[in-house]
Amino acid sequence: MTPDSGGFADVGLLTPVAVGHDAVVSDAAVAAALIEVEAALVRAAVALGLAPGSVGVAVERGADELRRTLDVAALAAEAVGGGNPVIPLVALLRTTVSDLDTDAAGWVHRGATSQDVVDSALALLVARACSAVSVDLGRVIAGLAALAAEHRDTVAVARTLGQHATPTTWGFRIAGWIAAVRAARTELRQACEALPAQLGGASGTLASFTALYGAETAARLPSAFAHELGLAAPELPWHVARRPLTRVGDAFTAVLDALGVIATDVALASRTEVGEAAEPAAPGRGGSSAMPHKRNPVLSVLIRSAALRAPGLAADLHRAAALAADERPDGAWHSEWPALRELLRGALGAAAAAAELAEGLTIDAGRATANLALTGGDVVSEQAKLTGSAGAPADYTGLAGRYVDEVLAAVRQERQQEEQ
Amino acid sequence: MTPDSGGFADVGLLTPVAVGHDAVVSDAAVAAALIEVEAALVRAAVALGLAPGSVGVAVERGADELRRTLDVAALAAEAVGGGNPVIPLVALLRTTVSDLDTDAAGWVHRGATSQDVVDSALALLVARACSAVSVDLGRVIAGLAALAAEHRDTVAVARTLGQHATPTTWGFRIAGWIAAVRAARTELRQACEALPAQLGGASGTLASFTALYGAETAARLPSAFAHELGLAAPELPWHVARRPLTRVGDAFTAVLDALGVIATDVALASRTEVGEAAEPAAPGRGGSSAMPHKRNPVLSVLIRSAALRAPGLAADLHRAAALAADERPDGAWHSEWPALRELLRGALGAAAAAAELAEGLTIDAGRATANLALTGGDVVSEQAKLTGSAGAPADYTGLAGRYVDEVLAAVRQERQQEEQ
Amino acid sequence: MTPDSGGFADVGLLTPVAVGHDAVVSDAAVAAALIEVEAALVRAAVALGLAPGSVGVAVERGADELRRTLDVAALAAEAVGGGNPVIPLVALLRTTVSDLDTDAAGWVHRGATSQDVVDSALALLVARACSAVSVDLGRVIAGLAALAAEHRDTVAVARTLGQHATPTTWGFRIAGWIAAVRAARTELRQACEALPAQLGGASGTLASFTALYGAETAARLPSAFAHELGLAAPELPWHVARRPLTRVGDAFTAVLDALGVIATDVALASRTEVGEAAEPAAPGRGGSSAMPHKRNPVLSVLIRSAALRAPGLAADLHRAAALAADERPDGAWHSEWPALRELLRGALGAAAAAAELAEGLTIDAGRATANLALTGGDVVSEQAKLTGSAGAPADYTGLAGRYVDEVLAAVRQERQQEEQ
Amino acid sequence: MTPDSGGFADVGLLTPVAVGHDAVVSDAAVAAALIEVEAALVRAAVALGLAPGSVGVAVERGADELRRTLDVAALAAEAVGGGNPVIPLVALLRTTVSDLDTDAAGWVHRGATSQDVVDSALALLVARACSAVSVDLGRVIAGLAALAAEHRDTVAVARTLGQHATPTTWGFRIAGWIAAVRAARTELRQACEALPAQLGGASGTLASFTALYGAETAARLPSAFAHELGLAAPELPWHVARRPLTRVGDAFTAVLDALGVIATDVALASRTEVGEAAEPAAPGRGGSSAMPHKRNPVLSVLIRSAALRAPGLAADLHRAAALAADERPDGAWHSEWPALRELLRGALGAAAAAAELAEGLTIDAGRATANLALTGGDVVSEQAKLTGSAGAPADYTGLAGRYVDEVLAAVRQERQQEEQ
Repeated sequence: MTPDSGGFADVGLLTPVAVGHDAVVSDAAVAAALIEVEAALVRAAVALGLAPGSVGVAVERGADELRRTLDVAALAAEAVGGGNPVIPLVALLRTTVSDLDTDAAGWVHRGATSQDVVDSALALLVARACSAVSVDLGRVIAGLAALAAEHRDTVAVARTLGQHATPTTWGFRIAGWIAAVRAARTELRQACEALPAQLGGASGTLASFTALYGAETAARLPSAFAHELGLAAPELPWHVARRPLTRVGDAFTAVLDALGVIATDVALASRTEVGEAAEPAAPGRGGSSAMPHKRNPVLSVLIRSAALRAPGLAADLHRAAALAADERPDGAWHSEWPALRELLRGALGAAAAAAELAEGLTIDAGRATANLALTGGDVVSEQAKLTGSAGAPADYTGLAGRYVDEVLAAVRQERQQEEQ
Repeated sequence: MTPDSGGFADVGLLTPVAVGHDAVVSDAAVAAALIEVEAALVRAAVALGLAPGSVGVAVERGADELRRTLDVAALAAEAVGGGNPVIPLVALLRTTVSDLDTDAAGWVHRGATSQDVVDSALALLVARACSAVSVDLGRVIAGLAALAAEHRDTVAVARTLGQHATPTTWGFRIAGWIAAVRAARTELRQACEALPAQLGGASGTLASFTALYGAETAARLPSAFAHELGLAAPELPWHVARRPLTRVGDAFTAVLDALGVIATDVALASRTEVGEAAEPAAPGRGGSSAMPHKRNPVLSVLIRSAALRAPGLAADLHRAAALAADERPDGAWHSEWPALRELLRGALGAAAAAAELAEGLTIDAGRATANLALTGGDVVSEQAKLTGSAGAPADYTGLAGRYVDEVLAAVRQERQQEEQ
Repeated sequence: MTPDSGGFADVGLLTPVAVGHDAVVSDAAVAAALIEVEAALVRAAVALGLAPGSVGVAVERGADELRRTLDVAALAAEAVGGGNPVIPLVALLRTTVSDLDTDAAGWVHRGATSQDVVDSALALLVARACSAVSVDLGRVIAGLAALAAEHRDTVAVARTLGQHATPTTWGFRIAGWIAAVRAARTELRQACEALPAQLGGASGTLASFTALYGAETAARLPSAFAHELGLAAPELPWHVARRPLTRVGDAFTAVLDALGVIATDVALASRTEVGEAAEPAAPGRGGSSAMPHKRNPVLSVLIRSAALRAPGLAADLHRAAALAADERPDGAWHSEWPALRELLRGALGAAAAAAELAEGLTIDAGRATANLALTGGDVVSEQAKLTGSAGAPADYTGLAGRYVDEVLAAVRQERQQEEQ
Repeated sequence: MTPDSGGFADVGLLTPVAVGHDAVVSDAAVAAALIEVEAALVRAAVALGLAPGSVGVAVERGADELRRTLDVAALAAEAVGGGNPVIPLVALLRTTVSDLDTDAAGWVHRGATSQDVVDSALALLVARACSAVSVDLGRVIAGLAALAAEHRDTVAVARTLGQHATPTTWGFRIAGWIAAVRAARTELRQACEALPAQLGGASGTLASFTALYGAETAARLPSAFAHELGLAAPELPWHVARRPLTRVGDAFTAVLDALGVIATDVALASRTEVGEAAEPAAPGRGGSSAMPHKRNPVLSVLIRSAALRAPGLAADLHRAAALAADERPDGAWHSEWPALRELLRGALGAAAAAAELAEGLTIDAGRATANLALTGGDVVSEQAKLTGSAGAPADYTGLAGRYVDEVLAAVRQERQQEEQ
């Protein structure tokens, strides 16, 4: 794509944080997931003995072919008329399958509604984004754990409202980052694992499946379908009960909050006058078009660019949830799609940037000591007030070391469990 | 307070949804909670054998007196200088206690920082709001369960994008509301129960408490303090790791999302042309200053007024979390307070309104039938397309009845467990 | 009000930024404005010769009495049933007037709808908040102008992405603040002056007034009414065309954006390691409950606490505008009220804090010079690259001085115009 | 692009509202604009007699070539290191130009900073989006004006809080839409015309240009540069004074608010039970994957999907503005880019959809009459209460017709002015 070619809306030029990390949630991935969902519905029918195995084979082959040949941009254009891409996609898939096996085509999308397919496909994307983010958060935790161990006892000044307060250690500050990232990762995994497939038919009653297969079989279909997709089985259709999605949005936002704190702290500690932290250097990293001497904390900047926007995107999901009227709302559902994707892109990019940051971040203990000295005895004035005498800053760090040890022990323990 | 008297910022005139339901999070309640937190810190010191019992008695008495005599508005005015109300409050409490027991005054706020007190007090408010909301959600569930049972088989038209789709039942629609409210209530309780007390001292290291009492005792103090307050024990100070708070904010928002759906559905179904639902009538309810004949769905309107704002308020908490720099940020923390409170007020009010709504909502089965007939056989055209023949709408509702039964069984089971 | 008394929702304990500055938008002020609007409608009828002068006298006296006697909290409680305070207020005002002049009571609220009164009353509050904010922004401008003049040539380092870039001057930085505040103030005034009174009757057609007085007179009534209130005359009723309100919201947010930049810059420049700026000291200002040595940049913190929330509140107004369905929406309108008021409170408080900040802010030229020296010749490396030789930082500040002069000249010119 | 190819982030699959309408703000357009801005800077130098004309020719030719050959996705990948695309783009443009004229390459980006180029390029995109939106709003106005004229006297029921209120006319309702769209378009044009080019050099002082060309010439450069781009001349660099951008964001949001009201009203009036309005039919429009009989109000749904998100995106811009610290902030600036673009995409798409909607919307006068009759005399009960007797609904529409005439006259007058 060149500038003159016109071309696609977004290749990442305005979201550098996401470039190289968001392929799992690209429109190509969306289209692939939509096809995958349609195929899974047929597989579920085969698995339940409703459709012959040959139908499954034909649909899988048709799906494969469509994945190789579908013009995603053309699909996007055809999606406008009905307001979603499923209607034209189903027509294409039926045609493709029909060329292979005429009877099989009738099994495509049988009994389903567009929202079943879109929601399930987005759930797949969430699951994949979740995995990728989770891996990168693992790198964040490991990188920071090494740094916290190295600087367990690097005394530094704590700052409240930007002013020198009392002493702390860099190890303790970093341990706090780790604990927050670990908690966010756990919640993220739980939210993603709980995200169910969607299958309700036109109005969420599974009337179509009931009419086709009888009530007992219809009742088993959603979990069979979810199983094919590796998603959680829905208790009820959630066409207009959107908590599974807002929960995921909240969890990704919590991840970005935790990363935002790290990035903000690093940016502040990297300021020229402070100089206690430095981002990893790399060729082409952090340069300036005007000032060759500059080394900008670009990873932190990119992380912050995503963290600042995440809450608004998650709020879009909540608002859509609150307006999910009738059996399918007239706009709220559609407003979820880009908001969710932007949120996923931000999380994917920020987690990758944070992994790189954590693995290469350096702490300058000398600058920490020098800064601590700027306010002299003031940083231990609280100690003097409380106990009548003030000691060295290193002796007024309370439980900092203990907390570092606890956090690092928890990291080690988790790693051992994962390795087993 | 009269208009001419000037007076306080907010008695609810612009938030009718909250009036009568938000006393547990009023500024009076905030002030009481701040005092309660200070007292609990001393009680914890007594419980750990650090302070003599007489100190605890004096501080409790001082706290009681301050609760009766403190001028909250004056405290708010004094809070401006330091940016938070704890500094002037501590001075007042020390003076009050000192009049009773000179030595005891020194135990007030000993080793703590303002954020320990504000965060813990807000956690208390959250816990109380959570309880109240939870009770009202119980009423919502019970009220809706009765209605769903009554209308288990009341066939109605499902609407997608505002248009007639296929048949459903009112019972199934209401069962969906119930399931969403139940899930949101469970999450809310979990989030609130997980909200810890805050105790870290000036920079979160517990250095003050370590200097005063030694490391082992300092390490036991946060959970002893949390125990006194009935809050969860913190694993680490969370001065700048705000997920416990954003999690609560997300959970309250999820509650409001679920209530927002009910209110939106009721408002739509109450529209004059639809007429399938009617809010409970009450004297003075739903009137108009211009048109005496009108009966406005005021409960739904009030619920929606809160639900529309909740996502933005929860997003404020997330943004503050992402900007929680250093050991205490320079503005982000302060921005949480009013956002959290507004969110709690909205949830308290909306849950109360929803309880009243659920207990008195009526469904007009005749109108449902008449509306269903408007599009004649179209609502079962899917059935004809899938199976070759169309039946009566009542025979094309799929698993609606089964799902109603499952939801109602879960409600009954929970009620039985609670009663045991 | 004491903690034990329960009492009102909000006296400012959780919004220290607003305390002492938000009386013009308190609930007492809202109630007074509602009464004032009802009185103005009758005055307009008198002015147009529709009602006898005696009616106007009686209603004014009734309004005065109600302002002295109305229990605002009780009104708030009565407002719940109808979802707004006008219905019970009208009943009270009619009773009060009736005691003075039986016939006059019938003129109260004649032909109007609740939204006419609420919207017009909120417009009055906006106008008053606008005046107060405008005055404080004048103080900000004057204070900063003196500081910019003083530091016109105080060379300092510019920072981009937190890193030393090239030289600038404190005068230039401050001139940028001034220009932004001036532009925001101008827009604010324009938006507030454009905010019209609301008068449309039940459905915005003025049918009631037309039926009562004929079309010609009805057409003249809105501007006569607006004249009585000192508000702009509406071209059309704007019950569901909310741009006048969102425009005001955007303008207040733009003011808070401009103040937020100042506060953020001051907080950063006040950081212990930087030390180039210091907030004005005052007794009780900026203290810490744990560390007596600290001087926190509390004014900046408070300003930032408001600036961080303003965009979300203004967005609430926009969302309500987009959802302003039918002839009055079912929740969106109600959601505007608290959002608007919170925004006004934040702006009032932040402007007052900024005025105090601007009038007392000090710049430490020595620290600026010392910081500039930290990166040695790097700050003029661009100059060397472009011109082949680098000079002193003071000689590489471009048009900084010229821009300062232009901004200060504009400030002087405006002051002279205002004084004439 | 196929699903298997991986490929670009976004071709519109999840934002059907924008498909076919957002090419002017695509990443290809961004890249073209960045090149255009760099070329304009050289042209400005030529125009001021600083660079020889041959340099301008070479740079234009180089720019043309780069527009044909640049791999935008590759540029996006190279942009990550420095956090913005200008650094790699300048290197490419210099190389391209250098092949044509070695000396000319040195004039590329001379004295500028990345933000000068990005901000100016985004301003170009805004200007183009503004033009396109403005044209489509013209179609909206013309389409609605014809409809309002047709239905000037089509009596219908007004609805407040979803309930029948008093009579109105469809003409009056539509006139209200027109007035809101016209006002929003005027504001949008003003905001876009006021958006200045950006030129300040590394720290906004124009030190580089002053060093190169002297102060007088440097002072003339920004307006010469702006002239080349067709943008407003900046009074000062606005690197960290972002009101020009937030103003544009607010104006686009106000447009979407106005369109959102239309879409919401149309969706409500299209509901099966109401049936007073119908979207234009078109092949493939409004279909359902499950129910062939359905005609969904897809244009309204798409407009609403954009309108619901706009306030959050504009709020992102405001938040970035409030956090625009130092001489370039560490994340806030970067967060603006995707938010602005999403907002523009939504506005472009919604305006186009609204144009199509307005040109084909039909009103069913018969249904309006039938619905009005549902509540019988209640809709004129206010009239009876006020005047003692109630007439036909058509006689209780107040100034509706007069307002329609005024709005249509203003539309005609503007059209005549434009045609002259």
